[in-house]
Amino acid sequence: MSDLEAVLAHIDADQSAALDRLFALLGIPSISTDPAYAGDCAHCAETVTADLAAMGFEARACPTAGHPIVVAHNRAASGRSVLFYGHYDVQPVDPLDLWDRPPFEPAIETLGDGTKVIRARGSSDDKGQFMTFVEACRAWVAVTGGLPIPVSIMLEGEEESGSPSLAAFLAEHGEELRADLGLICDTGMWDAATPAITTMLRGLCGEEIVIRGASRDLHSGMYGSAAANANHVLARVLADLRDDQGRVAIPGFYDGVPEIPDSLREQWEALDFDVAEFLGGVGLAVPAGEAGRSALEMIWARPTAEVNGMGGGYQGAGFKTVIPAEARAKVSFRLVFDQDPDKIRAAFRDFVRARIPADCTVEFHPHGNGRAVAFDTANRAFAAAQRALSEEWGRPAAFIGAGGSIPIAGDFKNKLGMDVILTGFGLDDDGIHSPNEKYNLESFHKGIRSWARILAALAE
Amino acid sequence: MSDLEAVLAHIDADQSAALDRLFALLGIPSISTDPAYAGDCAHCAETVTADLAAMGFEARACPTAGHPIVVAHNRAASGRSVLFYGHYDVQPVDPLDLWDRPPFEPAIETLGDGTKVIRARGSSDDKGQFMTFVEACRAWVAVTGGLPIPVSIMLEGEEESGSPSLAAFLAEHGEELRADLGLICDTGMWDAATPAITTMLRGLCGEEIVIRGASRDLHSGMYGSAAANANHVLARVLADLRDDQGRVAIPGFYDGVPEIPDSLREQWEALDFDVAEFLGGVGLAVPAGEAGRSALEMIWARPTAEVNGMGGGYQGAGFKTVIPAEARAKVSFRLVFDQDPDKIRAAFRDFVRARIPADCTVEFHPHGNGRAVAFDTANRAFAAAQRALSEEWGRPAAFIGAGGSIPIAGDFKNKLGMDVILTGFGLDDDGIHSPNEKYNLESFHKGIRSWARILAALAE
Repeated sequence: MSDLEAVLAHIDADQSAALDRLFALLGIPSISTDPAYAGDCAHCAETVTADLAAMGFEARACPTAGHPIVVAHNRAASGRSVLFYGHYDVQPVDPLDLWDRPPFEPAIETLGDGTKVIRARGSSDDKGQFMTFVEACRAWVAVTGGLPIPVSIMLEGEEESGSPSLAAFLAEHGEELRADLGLICDTGMWDAATPAITTMLRGLCGEEIVIRGASRDLHSGMYGSAAANANHVLARVLADLRDDQGRVAIPGFYDGVPEIPDSLREQWEALDFDVAEFLGGVGLAVPAGEAGRSALEMIWARPTAEVNGMGGGYQGAGFKTVIPAEARAKVSFRLVFDQDPDKIRAAFRDFVRARIPADCTVEFHPHGNGRAVAFDTANRAFAAAQRALSEEWGRPAAFIGAGGSIPIAGDFKNKLGMDVILTGFGLDDDGIHSPNEKYNLESFHKGIRSWARILAALAE
Repeated sequence: MSDLEAVLAHIDADQSAALDRLFALLGIPSISTDPAYAGDCAHCAETVTADLAAMGFEARACPTAGHPIVVAHNRAASGRSVLFYGHYDVQPVDPLDLWDRPPFEPAIETLGDGTKVIRARGSSDDKGQFMTFVEACRAWVAVTGGLPIPVSIMLEGEEESGSPSLAAFLAEHGEELRADLGLICDTGMWDAATPAITTMLRGLCGEEIVIRGASRDLHSGMYGSAAANANHVLARVLADLRDDQGRVAIPGFYDGVPEIPDSLREQWEALDFDVAEFLGGVGLAVPAGEAGRSALEMIWARPTAEVNGMGGGYQGAGFKTVIPAEARAKVSFRLVFDQDPDKIRAAFRDFVRARIPADCTVEFHPHGNGRAVAFDTANRAFAAAQRALSEEWGRPAAFIGAGGSIPIAGDFKNKLGMDVILTGFGLDDDGIHSPNEKYNLESFHKGIRSWARILAALAE
């Protein structure tokens, strides 16, 4: 039996214990964006640190201005080194009443079609995913006494809140962290049977705006029509964001956004993406974006503007005929190719200011800032990882784009000079960022086996 | 000393006790729109009923499908009968953090200019106002053993939530309630020195809309651009409500809205309304409504569309890049002249439906429905009341329009066939429906004296 075969057998035998370890992490409400959960984030970081140390990693939870970053090294092996990235923080859970069970009490559930899933906030994004790598390392250490290549692990605690501490951390610890290759497990499969390596990622620029009119809420009978209504001002700004062709109407927004090459377009068409199924799965039917572009192109290669949250005036039960003094919105842009987040932010602010009446004000709060990124798939590590994935899943692994933003991937490329293999085992119906998030038990199990194979392949 | 002089002297001597009685009512959080306060509404109704019974009224709190309606009669006198209307329910108090003191712990405060005010939710709208009439009756009874004319009192508990039980109540008890004249104390002075009788009132049509897109909140990276965003759909609807000239863009909205006669326009111009002061008092400067119309015309004689509340997606601390499945808004229209609330509601619903993508839905919830109303000032009761007010305040009382809607005034006119004298002692800076609501101590004291004089004048 080869080392790899022994490692895979160990993984299969150790499944129940691996699940127990994951459940312990899923029980910690490490919501990074809400200060009320800061203690839970710290507790989660310490739990993972202790686990990695027990496996033989030199591990520590490094303090930052926000939540700790876990760093661990096991560089005893020779060969090509890797730096693995994941994040232990999770999204908020509201609206809580749409969850079928408490979000931080993980459980195995069997769906109607017999699929077994791990149900909990963070099961897919990203605790379940990063633990596939940790468990693969654990199996290698248990079976062979060490890892096949030098491995460093960095686990962040602020990914879901825009990674405010990450830039300073990378600047300070870049030398320590740099490796020959980055590995990230925070993306999805092509479909439930087909593994994928994501080679293009959109960037992100988030901005909260606060529009203020009168010095207090007014009675709409007394002031209606005559006084500026912050809700109306905000609705105008947000409605103007996209034109009637679905294009973002901010001047200069599409600077640095080329048409994709015909070769790539053909490759994507060959994937035979079923837009009716994609939208139908969430109760929709009509592609909402730019007229004349395929859904896959819109998700992978076109920028977006989305209003993630908005509110103003009386939102309680019943009715209150106020003219609200204040209205707010959270708006985010997914960026592609060479779009510059700083320029987009500045252009958006000008766009908003141009729509604010002279006696109203607007305030801006930035959230998240990352360029789009694409990796050099000619790097032979990509072929090695693709082969390892194909062997585990019995199907060729696809090179794909991804709509979501993982700014760390750009940082690894631009700040640490590393190409990055992004592979993960999430599925479109995992409901990440939604109520009832889940991670398929098969994703967890075969995910661990996949990483065990990739570590072996990278050692060759 | 005439009876009236003795009554006025008694009112002056009884001020402290009158304040104590008002404070007891202000301490009850009778918020009608929020079901959590149903017990407080009932408690408030019982408290007022007991007080009226102790004064010699035949009084009862009548159950309805919602909150009770207090009805009381003292018809021992002969002469022209009146039905007084007020409401004991109050607006919600959020945002609570903008209140300088607990809203249901009333107190007397002295402002920077020496003005003494009663600070509490409901002090002006409408507990302080309706108690001016109750205290005037109490003084007449205390001094003369009875009232100068037959008086009935009706106090509603659902005015701030659209009066859902009122139509059925009036239909059932119309014969019992009908009088020669209606009296309502729920309006304001022209300014702090000039009393007013409101002879024109705008109507109201309120509507809550709920727009739904995907079956759950989506990740904007995974679905951004391609999936309908309920916030965008709602923002488009709300932005379209008014055109770039400030006109409401719903087809047929202005049916039944004539230009006001030149004579009325001239009378209003003579009032020398200071729009800069009106808007400046609440931190604004630019009239926001229809281009080319005066602020006074907009508030008294033009219809409005206002978004009183809206919300969708993530509104908590930090950022969450969701595409929300649902967004909501509360929209209200102030109506004038012959606008038909039912037609406006139907036209608004069509207007909204025309802007809903094929894979989204919209749900409507009506709130409030009242036509505009104007009274016949040739009725000699108007001259009598105007003379009584002028004597109390030392200035001629003005006949004015009002922007707010008091549907009961229309019901009195159309269902019970009564003209109505609307007079009240509220001021523009009372902050009704806002944090830190107040009622000037002078409004309360001279308001009681004003009603004592009006009762005498109507008996002549």
